[in-house]
Amino acid sequence: MKETDKSVAGTSIVRISSSGTEEVDDSIAVEEPLEIRLGYTDAHKGRIHKSISITMRTPGDDISLACGFLFSESIIRSIDEITSIDDSADNVIRIELKENLQFDLTRLDRHFYTTSSCGVCGKASLEALSTSGYDALRDNNFTISRKILTKLGSNLREKQPLFSQTGGCHATATFNANGNIVSVTEDVGRHNAMDKLIGGMLRAKILPMQDMGIIVSGRASFELMQKALVAGCPMLAAVGAPSSLAVELAQEFNITLVGFLSSTGCNIYHNSEAIL
Amino acid sequence: MKETDKSVAGTSIVRISSSGTEEVDDSIAVEEPLEIRLGYTDAHKGRIHKSISITMRTPGDDISLACGFLFSESIIRSIDEITSIDDSADNVIRIELKENLQFDLTRLDRHFYTTSSCGVCGKASLEALSTSGYDALRDNNFTISRKILTKLGSNLREKQPLFSQTGGCHATATFNANGNIVSVTEDVGRHNAMDKLIGGMLRAKILPMQDMGIIVSGRASFELMQKALVAGCPMLAAVGAPSSLAVELAQEFNITLVGFLSSTGCNIYHNSEAIL
Repeated sequence: MKETDKSVAGTSIVRISSSGTEEVDDSIAVEEPLEIRLGYTDAHKGRIHKSISITMRTPGDDISLACGFLFSESIIRSIDEITSIDDSADNVIRIELKENLQFDLTRLDRHFYTTSSCGVCGKASLEALSTSGYDALRDNNFTISRKILTKLGSNLREKQPLFSQTGGCHATATFNANGNIVSVTEDVGRHNAMDKLIGGMLRAKILPMQDMGIIVSGRASFELMQKALVAGCPMLAAVGAPSSLAVELAQEFNITLVGFLSSTGCNIYHNSEAIL
Repeated sequence: MKETDKSVAGTSIVRISSSGTEEVDDSIAVEEPLEIRLGYTDAHKGRIHKSISITMRTPGDDISLACGFLFSESIIRSIDEITSIDDSADNVIRIELKENLQFDLTRLDRHFYTTSSCGVCGKASLEALSTSGYDALRDNNFTISRKILTKLGSNLREKQPLFSQTGGCHATATFNANGNIVSVTEDVGRHNAMDKLIGGMLRAKILPMQDMGIIVSGRASFELMQKALVAGCPMLAAVGAPSSLAVELAQEFNITLVGFLSSTGCNIYHNSEAIL
């Protein structure tokens, strides 16, 4: 296998189609592990350097991916809490944090899903977000016309170079009320694509999101909605279906949630007033 | 939101379509956390009970999911290593293991992706599988005709009740050389669907797989291929695209890999001789 750039690899395949069987060269999306190593100060143990995550991702945009991950997992609240980022080693990002920050790394093991009160359930997962300090979007005024909304999918499709080459990766993008795709990220993992998008906004200091929504090329899960919430996203539009817990999060935190978005229509799971 | 059975929930939505806007009742796939608690004996610390995983899954088939997870993470090698399974609490599975078992829970944090020799990379991920004792399928004799292969997708589609109701979940299934779908699992997470499938086979004591392949409704990633390898699967057919590392794993461990499977054709990424 030959990498043509770091996110696409070339490989020889046998293609079976209605016109017969042939050996051809094909392009596939690269999947490689990325390790995030964090440097931080512990009140008792002093300076610590620790590997906190290994994720299978498509190379490219690694710094945004790492920053978005730290932000959406509530380890950092601002890009200013990072003092240095080192991506000189392959597949490793080293991030140093300021001293005197307070965060809870055990969340990474637990993924927010438990509370002391009632153990593990979807409700506890939502409550854990509230107790972590995330409020419902009380002043969610983001609206979009039905006509513009149903064009979003094709607008996104025009801006997915990796998908165009490989047919094998997710896209996540921001859009404004005019239907313009503002920024796009792609990855073999949909969580990674979302982390890259949010990390990019964090680095550009444009969080919480203002007057923009997020579109995802696949389905909407609890984790994607949680990341959208952390970024202050007022509207999430998914080309695929949402899960039950994604809908509950949308309702509880007042995020407009659109699913099954196509050129002919969509389903609105929360806050249908936002679609004009 | 109202759960109509434990894997499907009903919700009221606004549907926008070419025929207008209407409020309708809709079905969505349930997503809830499942905690796996493991009881095992540590040589130094005695009997330990520990939460080792929380995964967002669609309820149903929880015991198979937990058993498949333990097996595909190399914590157990046989169903006989489990002495009891308790699923009496909602969203928690308690599994007790025999004494004197040897396994390495730190793998769960590392996800196999590192070796001491060269750090984090795709090659190391593959090597870590070898050092964990997984051999290439030397005697991979599973073959299927092109005609039967291209019908597999529609055969699977007929056996996805949760997807039919919700449009929002993955399916994983075993198939034989006649194109019959032998068993099917569904879940909002594709890794969970695979764990449910493998766990079901483990409990039925039909692993390693004999004369059957696995079809997945989505894409093929490294992790899905790794789980297929652990189950001794000779052929994996994906409706979607494979990643680069999925192809490398297929090549290295001699698993026939088919992608973009449709009624008119497919791509074969490794071992095209298996398609007759």
